[in-house]
Amino acid sequence: MTSLLLLSLGLGAVPAFLAAHAPTGRALTIGYVPDAARAHPDAPYVAAERAGVAALGHALVDVRLTGADPRGVASALDGVDALYVAGGSTFALLDALRTSGADAVVAERVRAGLPYIGCSAGSVVAGPSIEPVSLMDDPADAPDLTDLRGLGLTDAVVVPHADGKLPPYPLDLIGRTLARYGPDHELVPLCDDEALLVTGPGWSVVTSG
Amino acid sequence: MTSLLLLSLGLGAVPAFLAAHAPTGRALTIGYVPDAARAHPDAPYVAAERAGVAALGHALVDVRLTGADPRGVASALDGVDALYVAGGSTFALLDALRTSGADAVVAERVRAGLPYIGCSAGSVVAGPSIEPVSLMDDPADAPDLTDLRGLGLTDAVVVPHADGKLPPYPLDLIGRTLARYGPDHELVPLCDDEALLVTGPGWSVVTSG
Repeated sequence: MTSLLLLSLGLGAVPAFLAAHAPTGRALTIGYVPDAARAHPDAPYVAAERAGVAALGHALVDVRLTGADPRGVASALDGVDALYVAGGSTFALLDALRTSGADAVVAERVRAGLPYIGCSAGSVVAGPSIEPVSLMDDPADAPDLTDLRGLGLTDAVVVPHADGKLPPYPLDLIGRTLARYGPDHELVPLCDDEALLVTGPGWSVVTSG
Repeated sequence: MTSLLLLSLGLGAVPAFLAAHAPTGRALTIGYVPDAARAHPDAPYVAAERAGVAALGHALVDVRLTGADPRGVASALDGVDALYVAGGSTFALLDALRTSGADAVVAERVRAGLPYIGCSAGSVVAGPSIEPVSLMDDPADAPDLTDLRGLGLTDAVVVPHADGKLPPYPLDLIGRTLARYGPDHELVPLCDDEALLVTGPGWSVVTSG
């Protein structure tokens, strides 16, 4: 069963999502994809996001895509109960997914039931196209990336930070993004305390003692 | 987005299901459908189930189907955040759904996003047919019921109590049920500490502060 939780910033919905969609009754391991921030790994927001995810109390393992190959990514995903794709540059992230071949591997695993949590760039890239964040993020972060198709795990293109509270994304930038890309994409603007819960058809047996 | 949690007996999965699929940030009201037990409302298991659901801490309102009409059921569902369809006789429950016209109303609301929690009979009736429980429950509970199609909210037919621990449903009865109806139905046997989490395709915005 396909299950995605696409965050804008706040992690508040993650515990219930994991409780409902990940294995229960044992400790979880979350794969953490850091590649959206590969150009500035020491930025404070990068450390803050990772610390927030770590504070959820599950084991974290890095699943680094840049320089990886499909077999290595598949092997890394074998060991995780859920995938967390962190924020940064959506263009850098999609470039890392595409050049490593992880795009197909991740899409296949999520369709087969691996719970996917995205945040900001990690949320946008789950949709059909990242073109709608071309004003919010810088396409020059991945000069060789020409195919802007995302993972296609949902028809929705998340527009994160849509309440304009995060300084790099003021409301007028959000407004221009919605005006320019809204006609051709299924945009879902998310405030920083909202998330998009996406599910595909299917069922799974869960513990209910 | 269609979301169902189909219990066998234990309620343990309900809190995470409600957290992930029902409105958050305010008190919830759960509609409680008691009709499966209409022939013996004072049986101890009936009181025990209701007490267990009440102990989840949400407001409970009865949504009684027997003698109701579609308009009354629709109006009752307007006021609830999730529906809990309790256990008893699957045949009595389907009869109550069918004769009241609640079957179509409930199916439409759940397809539109009303979270559905079933337990035992309430789980079976969500599937395409209740015929597979003809050995476990007594068709004579609803002599006028000839059309055994369920709500059709999932292709799965839950076989509750499949661990044979509940006295009325010993393992040999479970075995005969699986052998007889398995070839023609998509049976999902559930132990009493398991539940089936069913989702349709779609998405919803959830709180994530």
